[in-house]
Amino acid sequence: MPVVDALRARLGPDRVLVAEAARGPHRDSWVMSILEEVHGAAPSLPACVVRPQTTAEVVEVVKACGAHGAPLVPFGLGSGVCGGIRPSAESVVLDLGGLHRVRTIDVANLTATFEAGMRGSEAEAAVNRAGLTIGHFPQSHEVSSVGGWVATRSSGQLSNRYGNIEDLILGLEVVLPSGEVLTTPVTPRASIGPSLVELFLGSEGTLGVITAVVLSLHRAPERREVTAWYARDFEAGVEAVRAIHQAGWSPAVSRLLDPGDARRLLPTHARGGQSLLLFVHEGPARLVEVELEACSTLARGAGCEPAPAEATSTWLEHRNQVPSFPELIRQGIVFDTIDLSSTWDKVVPLYRAFLASVGSQAHLLLASAHVSHAYRSGANLYLTFALRPPEPSAMREAYWGCWREVMARTLEVGGCISHHHGIGRVRLGWMEAQLGTAGVGVLRNLKTSLDPQWIMNPGVVVQRG
Amino acid sequence: MPVVDALRARLGPDRVLVAEAARGPHRDSWVMSILEEVHGAAPSLPACVVRPQTTAEVVEVVKACGAHGAPLVPFGLGSGVCGGIRPSAESVVLDLGGLHRVRTIDVANLTATFEAGMRGSEAEAAVNRAGLTIGHFPQSHEVSSVGGWVATRSSGQLSNRYGNIEDLILGLEVVLPSGEVLTTPVTPRASIGPSLVELFLGSEGTLGVITAVVLSLHRAPERREVTAWYARDFEAGVEAVRAIHQAGWSPAVSRLLDPGDARRLLPTHARGGQSLLLFVHEGPARLVEVELEACSTLARGAGCEPAPAEATSTWLEHRNQVPSFPELIRQGIVFDTIDLSSTWDKVVPLYRAFLASVGSQAHLLLASAHVSHAYRSGANLYLTFALRPPEPSAMREAYWGCWREVMARTLEVGGCISHHHGIGRVRLGWMEAQLGTAGVGVLRNLKTSLDPQWIMNPGVVVQRG
Repeated sequence: MPVVDALRARLGPDRVLVAEAARGPHRDSWVMSILEEVHGAAPSLPACVVRPQTTAEVVEVVKACGAHGAPLVPFGLGSGVCGGIRPSAESVVLDLGGLHRVRTIDVANLTATFEAGMRGSEAEAAVNRAGLTIGHFPQSHEVSSVGGWVATRSSGQLSNRYGNIEDLILGLEVVLPSGEVLTTPVTPRASIGPSLVELFLGSEGTLGVITAVVLSLHRAPERREVTAWYARDFEAGVEAVRAIHQAGWSPAVSRLLDPGDARRLLPTHARGGQSLLLFVHEGPARLVEVELEACSTLARGAGCEPAPAEATSTWLEHRNQVPSFPELIRQGIVFDTIDLSSTWDKVVPLYRAFLASVGSQAHLLLASAHVSHAYRSGANLYLTFALRPPEPSAMREAYWGCWREVMARTLEVGGCISHHHGIGRVRLGWMEAQLGTAGVGVLRNLKTSLDPQWIMNPGVVVQRG
Repeated sequence: MPVVDALRARLGPDRVLVAEAARGPHRDSWVMSILEEVHGAAPSLPACVVRPQTTAEVVEVVKACGAHGAPLVPFGLGSGVCGGIRPSAESVVLDLGGLHRVRTIDVANLTATFEAGMRGSEAEAAVNRAGLTIGHFPQSHEVSSVGGWVATRSSGQLSNRYGNIEDLILGLEVVLPSGEVLTTPVTPRASIGPSLVELFLGSEGTLGVITAVVLSLHRAPERREVTAWYARDFEAGVEAVRAIHQAGWSPAVSRLLDPGDARRLLPTHARGGQSLLLFVHEGPARLVEVELEACSTLARGAGCEPAPAEATSTWLEHRNQVPSFPELIRQGIVFDTIDLSSTWDKVVPLYRAFLASVGSQAHLLLASAHVSHAYRSGANLYLTFALRPPEPSAMREAYWGCWREVMARTLEVGGCISHHHGIGRVRLGWMEAQLGTAGVGVLRNLKTSLDPQWIMNPGVVVQRG
C-alpha cells in the first residue's frame, strides 16, 4: 500500500512492521474482539504497525497518513475494554511503545512528564523512587499506558483522595491531525479560554496522538489505615458512603460490594445478603486519624457493623487480578463489566434496574455490582455479569442483550452510560441518546474541525453525520 | 436595523430595548472602557439590548442574529475586568438578567440548578437557606452572575477547599450558535468523550449562550477558624504555602500578602518589610482542628511567626471592597490588577520580574502582590499596580506599558498569563505566545466549527485567522 511505502521512506524500514506476527496483537481487550478470535475469526490486522521513537517521528507518521488519507490508530498498551482499538485492514497502527521515557520528575513542583507510551506501573515506580506517588491506580495499572489514561479519561481505585485523571493532569503534548505539535502551558490552573487539555481527555485517539503527559504528583502518604464494615443491604451501604462524602471527608477508598461481589471477591468475609464496605484512609497521619474516626461514626450511623479489616487488606492485595477472558470464552461463558455513574438518588434505582433486567436473563451465572468512586453529588456503579448460553453461537447475542438492557435502563433512570471505561465501539450506539442531537453534533463538529478527513481512529466516540 | 425588527417580531417589542439609556451600561468593568468614558468618549452602544425571560426566547434571539449575521454579545452582570464586553454599534446585547431563577435545589444530591443570569450572592443565599453553600466566592460575588462564573472560568476566594468553578460544575444548558439547545448529562463524573461542559468554561460568550448551570454544593461548614502569620519575606511565605499544600492540606484560604499589599489592605497589622500570611480553615470540626495544627506547624517550620488573628478576620470582613475606578481615573490614577499562575519554582521569579519592571515605571504609585490560590504543583500570583502620569492623556499608554511588561516577563519566565480573570480584549495579543500557533489554531477551529459566522461575542479569546 502506498502509505506503507511513504512511512518507510519517512521513518526508515525498521520502524514499519508488516509481518503478520508484528501486526497481530494490536487491538484492545474488548470481550467481543476476544470472542471473535477464540471462535476462530481471523484477527483484524492493519496494513502495518509503526513504532516511532520520538515526537518528531510521530509527526512524520501523522503527515504520511494525512497525505494518503489512511486511517491512523494510536495504540498504547491495549487494556481498553470498549472496542476502542480494532484496526481495519487499510489502517496504520501507531504503537506508542517506543515513546516510553520519563522526561522529568520535579520534586519541588511535584510534577512529572512522561512519554505517552510509558507503562503506568513503571511511571509510578519512577516517582516512588523520589518519595512521590501519581496516586492513579486503575485496575489496569500494570497493563495500561500514561497516554492511554488520558485518551480514555480513566479513574484510579484511590481516586476519592487523589482525583481522577482530569484532576492529575497539568499539560499535554499532542500531534494534531494537521501534523502540528500542540504543547499546552504547564500550570496548575488557568483561565485562558476553553481548556486545550480537556479536549483530549476521552478523545480515544480521534483528535490527535498524545505523545507526552505532564502530571501533578502527590507526596507518598505518611500513613495508611484500613477498615471494613457490613451493611445490612446495598441501600444502607450507599447511604453510608453518601453521608461520608457529603460531610466533607474523602477516604481514598470507600468501596461498597453488593452481596454478589462480596461473595465472589472476598468469600472468606462475605456474610449472607449483606453488603461489604471497604475503607482505605491515607495521607498525613493526623488527617488519617480523624478521617477514620469520622467515617467509622458515619458508617455506624447508617447502620453498618464492623467487619474484619483483613477484608480490605485482602482486597488491596488481590484487587488487580482479573479472570482470563479467553479462558472464560472457551468455557462458553460471556463475562463483562459496565461502569455507570449518576447522582446519589439514582444509584440504587440503577442497581435495582440492573438486577431486574440482566438478573433475569436466561442462562445467567452472575449479576453483581459495587460502588467504587464517590463524590458529593453522586457515585459510580460498576456492574459485572456472566452468562453461559447453551450454544457458543448464542454468546454474542446474549452479550448484546445484557448491554442493551443496561444502557436502556440507565438512560431511562437518568444515569450516565460510562463513569471511566469510555465509549469505544461498545457504547457508540447510545451516544445520541446520552448527549442529544445537539451534544453529538458538537462532538462531530469538533472532530471535523481538527480532523477534516476523519482518519484518526475512525469509528469510535462519534460517527460521521 | 433589520435584526432589531426581526427581534421585535420574534419576542414582542417589550423584550427589545433601543432607548439610549437602556443600551448604556452594557459593557464590563475593564479599566480602559471606564477610562474612555471618564475622558469623555461616547460609550460604545449596541444596536439594541434584548432581555429574554426563558431559554426558548434566547433561542429566538440566537436565530434572529444568525439569520441577519448580527454580532451577539451575551451579558451577565458586567463585572469582568478584561474588556470581554464592548458591544459594537451593529451588535445585539443579550442581557441575561431575565433568566434569574433557581430551578432546583436538591439537598439529598447536593445539587442546584440556577439560570445563568442569577446573581452569585443570591444563588448563595438561596442554598444557605437549605443549610448548604456553593463555596464559590469571587471578589465579584455580589456583582457577578452564575453564568458569568462559567463563561469566564472564575475562582473563588475559598477555592483551596471548595474548588474552582470547573470543580463545582455538574452540567450546563447552552443555546448553541445554531439555535439548538445543548443540555449536558448531570452526573458527578463521566467518560463519554471530551467534556462538553469544559468547552464552555472560559468561552467568554464566543461559543454559545449559557442559559443554566448545575452546580455541586457543599454542606455549610461545621466550623471556621482563622490564624495569621508574619513571614520574614515573600519567599519564606511562598515556601510556607507550598509546604502546606504539598503535604496534603487544603486550608480554604492560604493567602500571602507581600509587604505592599499588607500595608494597603491591612495597615493595622502590616509589619515593615514582612509579608502577611492569612489562613482560614473550615469544614468538619475535627478536620479544622488537625488542619489548623498542621498548617501552624508548617508555617513555623518555614520561619513564620504568629500575627494577630484579627488580621484574617479583618480581611474576611472587607475582602470585597474595591476602589472606585471612575473616581481613581478622575484623580488621574490608572489602577489595575493582573492575575497570573505558574508552577511553584516560578512564583518568586514572576514576583521579582514584576517588581523590577512595573516597579520601575515612571510615575508609579503602587506595585504589590499576593498569592491567593494554591495547588500541589503551583499557585497564582495576583498583581496590583497604580500610576499617576503627569497628564491624563498619558494614562492609556502608561497602562499598556505595565501590561506589556508583565505579559512579556511572564512568558519569558514560563508562567501563565491568567489564573482566573480570563482573556477578553486585554490579553488577546498574547494568546499566540501563550498557546503557540497550534493552540490558537485549535481554538480558532473550535470557534469556526460551532459559530461559522463568528457572530458570538467577536473579538475576544481568539481572533479570526
